[in-house]
Amino acid sequence: MADPRFFEKADTFTLGQLVDLSKAEVSAGADLGLTLVDTAPLDRAEAGHVTCFHNTKYTDQLKATKASVVIIHPDHADKAPASAVLLLTKQPYRVFGKIAVAFYPTVQPYKGVCSSAYVDPSASLGEDVSIGPFAVISANVTIGARTRIGPHCVIEAGVAIGEDCSFDSHISMSHSIVGNRVHIKPGARIGQSGFGFHMDEHGHFPIPQLGRVLVGDDVEIGANTTIDRGAEPDTIIGRGSRIDNLVQLGHNVQLGDNCVIVAQVGISGSTKLGKFVIAAGQVGVAGHLSIGDGAKIAAKSGVMRNIKPGETVGGCPAMPVKDWHRQTVAISKLTKGQTND
Amino acid sequence: MADPRFFEKADTFTLGQLVDLSKAEVSAGADLGLTLVDTAPLDRAEAGHVTCFHNTKYTDQLKATKASVVIIHPDHADKAPASAVLLLTKQPYRVFGKIAVAFYPTVQPYKGVCSSAYVDPSASLGEDVSIGPFAVISANVTIGARTRIGPHCVIEAGVAIGEDCSFDSHISMSHSIVGNRVHIKPGARIGQSGFGFHMDEHGHFPIPQLGRVLVGDDVEIGANTTIDRGAEPDTIIGRGSRIDNLVQLGHNVQLGDNCVIVAQVGISGSTKLGKFVIAAGQVGVAGHLSIGDGAKIAAKSGVMRNIKPGETVGGCPAMPVKDWHRQTVAISKLTKGQTND
Amino acid sequence: MADPRFFEKADTFTLGQLVDLSKAEVSAGADLGLTLVDTAPLDRAEAGHVTCFHNTKYTDQLKATKASVVIIHPDHADKAPASAVLLLTKQPYRVFGKIAVAFYPTVQPYKGVCSSAYVDPSASLGEDVSIGPFAVISANVTIGARTRIGPHCVIEAGVAIGEDCSFDSHISMSHSIVGNRVHIKPGARIGQSGFGFHMDEHGHFPIPQLGRVLVGDDVEIGANTTIDRGAEPDTIIGRGSRIDNLVQLGHNVQLGDNCVIVAQVGISGSTKLGKFVIAAGQVGVAGHLSIGDGAKIAAKSGVMRNIKPGETVGGCPAMPVKDWHRQTVAISKLTKGQTND
Repeated sequence: MADPRFFEKADTFTLGQLVDLSKAEVSAGADLGLTLVDTAPLDRAEAGHVTCFHNTKYTDQLKATKASVVIIHPDHADKAPASAVLLLTKQPYRVFGKIAVAFYPTVQPYKGVCSSAYVDPSASLGEDVSIGPFAVISANVTIGARTRIGPHCVIEAGVAIGEDCSFDSHISMSHSIVGNRVHIKPGARIGQSGFGFHMDEHGHFPIPQLGRVLVGDDVEIGANTTIDRGAEPDTIIGRGSRIDNLVQLGHNVQLGDNCVIVAQVGISGSTKLGKFVIAAGQVGVAGHLSIGDGAKIAAKSGVMRNIKPGETVGGCPAMPVKDWHRQTVAISKLTKGQTND
Repeated sequence: MADPRFFEKADTFTLGQLVDLSKAEVSAGADLGLTLVDTAPLDRAEAGHVTCFHNTKYTDQLKATKASVVIIHPDHADKAPASAVLLLTKQPYRVFGKIAVAFYPTVQPYKGVCSSAYVDPSASLGEDVSIGPFAVISANVTIGARTRIGPHCVIEAGVAIGEDCSFDSHISMSHSIVGNRVHIKPGARIGQSGFGFHMDEHGHFPIPQLGRVLVGDDVEIGANTTIDRGAEPDTIIGRGSRIDNLVQLGHNVQLGDNCVIVAQVGISGSTKLGKFVIAAGQVGVAGHLSIGDGAKIAAKSGVMRNIKPGETVGGCPAMPVKDWHRQTVAISKLTKGQTND
Repeated sequence: MADPRFFEKADTFTLGQLVDLSKAEVSAGADLGLTLVDTAPLDRAEAGHVTCFHNTKYTDQLKATKASVVIIHPDHADKAPASAVLLLTKQPYRVFGKIAVAFYPTVQPYKGVCSSAYVDPSASLGEDVSIGPFAVISANVTIGARTRIGPHCVIEAGVAIGEDCSFDSHISMSHSIVGNRVHIKPGARIGQSGFGFHMDEHGHFPIPQLGRVLVGDDVEIGANTTIDRGAEPDTIIGRGSRIDNLVQLGHNVQLGDNCVIVAQVGISGSTKLGKFVIAAGQVGVAGHLSIGDGAKIAAKSGVMRNIKPGETVGGCPAMPVKDWHRQTVAISKLTKGQTND
């Protein structure tokens, strides 16, 4: 079970309640009155626990699990132990998420506005906003209802933040307009001036960065990630996009809705991504490019040209992923037969 | 126009004033009494606006711009719309920067020393220094005239900072001597101990890091960038250098004047760069190397040997950029003729 | 000598004292009463100074050093100047570390609990704990004796920290259990929720992250590094491991004891490293992998498969380092004879 020092368990549930909650199909003959007391991973689950199978690398753990309930795709149902009740769904990880939230609902660590925070008199706070210790809410900031601003956040003048957002600690934000239900993790830097200057053989000359950062609804931004504001127009993060830790987004970058940007990716200025683009870890994308809807970029790739919608690319410079795999094979053949003493 | 919630416009200007200010050449027959009200990018500019053409990727936008004034290199003047007045210069982006600063001069968000800041009695603050909320100025720190220290900065004991510097929020600085007109963005970490230890099969043993960080005049350091102090002697950032976000500079690294270090670059300990070196995004440079004046390193390259002055390199391991392009072509030929079904 | 604005020198030592302290062998005929006043690098040392030779790149500096005492491996003793006393040891850098600590012992910059810090009444602080300005110590946190929490750290509810730890400034920590003698550098983010969600064509759905971060004794964590807590079970950092700046460790990552993770490395979720694994700068490791004890990964490599104990790998995708070098040679031969005009 989750460590009670950090996580507060709400309650126990009957199997029937979990079926209702998840809308998953229950395996034949199950007792809907069965009491479930917790969630746990496959290899740590015990009787009374709900677990989830969503990665075939862990089939051995599935076979040995002691969980009373396994959330599982119907295609894999035959690998589950006969003793377990199955919750059958094509989206097992999502259903697990729903059930885990029921067991462990989010608890707000701070209530109200801490007396140690600085809130400018001109700032406007919605109902039930919470502001953590030593946070700074500057002039003319607006914060929507139920949004939580963590300790040591600095929200600079004029920023507008929507409802039900959750800002962890130590966040810097300026020149930004933020939607609803946005979650930002510790140490993210959003809205600072971009890397814009005239390079000159006698020394470099800064260019004012007169744009903003627009963050859509339901976005998640990772720890210590940096998102520069536009030089003008704006840097834009589309609705539902998920950005991991230590990502760099340059000025004027635009992400479409529901992009997934994994840790340590860097996207250079003025590049535009469509919807549902996936950039895996440590990818780099050059500036002023266009990456089409649904494109996928393999980890560590270096993208130096436009990518078509739906294309999957890899390598550096990035190419269609099949070409990349072929080249990898062809290169390894160059040295075939050389001994490896 | 720039969002007035975040940017304060100073005034309007006549064309004649902008010509005087920029020292650019105005196109024949222009009315020097023309009033300009704002700056804007090519595709968003309207009548009364000043815009700039400095990247040939955007020639279509140039042709369609509605701006009254276009700052442009004489070589491209024939592509501008006939309706626009031209400001002709070989440095259009620099001239745009000058004019944009005139329209939108920098405004200090905090005046004086916030009552919530902690300033040690032994610290010495020059005239018109401003210190933001909850900043910490420790013992024997000296800060030059007109320097701005943002909210939540922590300046550790003994640090010396010059005049007219601008520190954004959440910066950590220790063991550092900083010049004038230095701009540091949120979350930069400067002066912490480096990654110095004796590796041992029984466990690793730390080595005291007894050097400093010396930052020259007119340097810019990006958000969440980390610069370790020297192990002894010092880590040195040459005058006028521009360092982007999430860059790592190890202990004893030396940058010459006017280097440009793009986001997510890492430079290992004791490597020395000459003047005007450019390291593009996500480059890695091994330790104890020497990179000559004016060298250029392509994005994502891995540098494992010394680079001669003026050399341009790419790839991993990095090689002269022409060799790298040839190898890329040669590798792609290895798989030529294979079908791509 | 180290800048006295930042470093406080304790005392001078006789050669005899340094021999006792270091257990190194002194060269024949040395005067054990010789007074040593400082440490310095080879090229800056003067009479009365102790220096160290531990990197053969600097043999020229060794030959020219003016130091009175050189700490050196017996195999290199013949290259040292005849004028210098030698301290002979197979671990010269370690011995230098011991002696440098004697000259410059660590000084605690803050004593006691700063009046500006927020310490929840339910928190438990051991003897001689120091808490810097504006730090936040939340409910039920426990901190062991002599641990130093720097300015602007935020320690969230329930975190347990051992004895003799040193937290620099601006650290965020939640959901974590930390051992003794752990050193964390500024801006590290430890314990935030991981990048865990169900990817869905209609939008992504978050999965509660119900694990913790367990940090062993004697660990060092670099500036602006991010370590996500487990999704359940835990993210684990083994005893004695050294993690550099700007490193990303995903949820459920496990490092064995004494690993060395260099700057800007990223390790994806659920990957397990054995003991004494070395990952050089900017390495990326995919998720759900197993990296054996003593494995070494060359800088910038991309690891996409399990690595056997003791194996050394390089390249992207990573392969045995000999194969990687052979491929590099074979590729360069493909373009041999092409002119480089």
